[in-house]
Amino acid sequence: MNVDLSATWQEASRVTLRGRIAVVIDVLRATSTIVTAIQSGAREVIPVETPEDARLAAQETGADGVVLGGERGGLKIEGFDFGNSPYEFTPHSVGGKTVVMTTTNGTRAFAAAREADITFAAALLNIGSVANVLLHEGRDVAVICAGTEGRVSLDDLYCAGALIERIVTPGSDWVLNDGAKLAVHWYGSNTGTSFDVLASCAHGRRLAELGFHRDVEFCSGVDTVTEVPVLKGRSLVSR
Amino acid sequence: MNVDLSATWQEASRVTLRGRIAVVIDVLRATSTIVTAIQSGAREVIPVETPEDARLAAQETGADGVVLGGERGGLKIEGFDFGNSPYEFTPHSVGGKTVVMTTTNGTRAFAAAREADITFAAALLNIGSVANVLLHEGRDVAVICAGTEGRVSLDDLYCAGALIERIVTPGSDWVLNDGAKLAVHWYGSNTGTSFDVLASCAHGRRLAELGFHRDVEFCSGVDTVTEVPVLKGRSLVSR
Repeated sequence: MNVDLSATWQEASRVTLRGRIAVVIDVLRATSTIVTAIQSGAREVIPVETPEDARLAAQETGADGVVLGGERGGLKIEGFDFGNSPYEFTPHSVGGKTVVMTTTNGTRAFAAAREADITFAAALLNIGSVANVLLHEGRDVAVICAGTEGRVSLDDLYCAGALIERIVTPGSDWVLNDGAKLAVHWYGSNTGTSFDVLASCAHGRRLAELGFHRDVEFCSGVDTVTEVPVLKGRSLVSR
Repeated sequence: MNVDLSATWQEASRVTLRGRIAVVIDVLRATSTIVTAIQSGAREVIPVETPEDARLAAQETGADGVVLGGERGGLKIEGFDFGNSPYEFTPHSVGGKTVVMTTTNGTRAFAAAREADITFAAALLNIGSVANVLLHEGRDVAVICAGTEGRVSLDDLYCAGALIERIVTPGSDWVLNDGAKLAVHWYGSNTGTSFDVLASCAHGRRLAELGFHRDVEFCSGVDTVTEVPVLKGRSLVSR
């Protein structure tokens, strides 16, 4: 089996995803927040590309209990219920509800994954559960790091490396592309904690400047969530 | 000063290059070949995007001694004088001549560097000389790895890491973006030789399959060339 990693969602748009399982990673913060929302009992999370798409999707859904979440420039979008902080997505605030989300990088990565057979959302929070699902499926995997505005992002690559290391055990016959090898090397030879890595990368420092230091800490948690959100139609739901 | 690294030329097209020095790297094989051609006494190397552009540029140049070089799918283009193997660009074959080059990734990276104040061509072959020039200039640097068809390429990232490590000495005030940090980590924590890295990356294995094993070996050479080709107008010339 193959593991093909794209370091940005823009890079992923050049990859053939048909027949593969896609794993979308945006540690700071979209997939960490989506994983948290599903764990908190949200009925579904609908990732969309723009704030306008979000408002349209909310209208079309027409269901009771639709909430809007997301960010631009790291901050909550005007008129939205929530920003992109996992702390906002509690059982009380999103339990049983439909969450429509738009973020600068992460939700667009789900659009780039459109062609894949199955698409999962992964973060450090649920990495062990995602690894178990991938090992159970035993099929070619395309790891799509969201990146930050088209640039390689060390937080996403770290999470991807941690995930790949858990599935590519010694003696297994997985074949890695250059990006996947790089991620495993970055994760495996990194002596810091997950928080050290997230807090020192460009995106983590930016979030701290915006006052989201606690979010960076939260997103550094490893194996704190068992849910593996999976895309069904346009919605991410509990697997 | 800042070092901003793009892992593919497509990523570089999102970067503001005005006011910066761009360093284009395509170890396998475009910049290794260009560096070799200039060292062999070529008057100039004109990097262009397509085979058609190459034929037009050769006509426009109208100079005596214009030769065409480059590849598609790793192989020499029909009607061209040379492929993309550094072994072809000897003092005998290109000395005093204009070389018009088009390759799948590398020559396009020079187009992506268009906005930069100064653009240099770098490979492992001339890495020490490039580092000296950058230290002398003391200005913001944008390292543009060509990548391979839009994908991150471990050979380019290794060369970039080696270059950045030579300019970012302990105590210096260089600030690195995520991509530059990753390259330094990949280079610095890699225990293999430069040949091991180039031979094991996807592009190196592909070239070996095509019969270019010796080219991979040649391009692994470190500090074998003193020339630093610089872009003047549309031509790369001896600095």
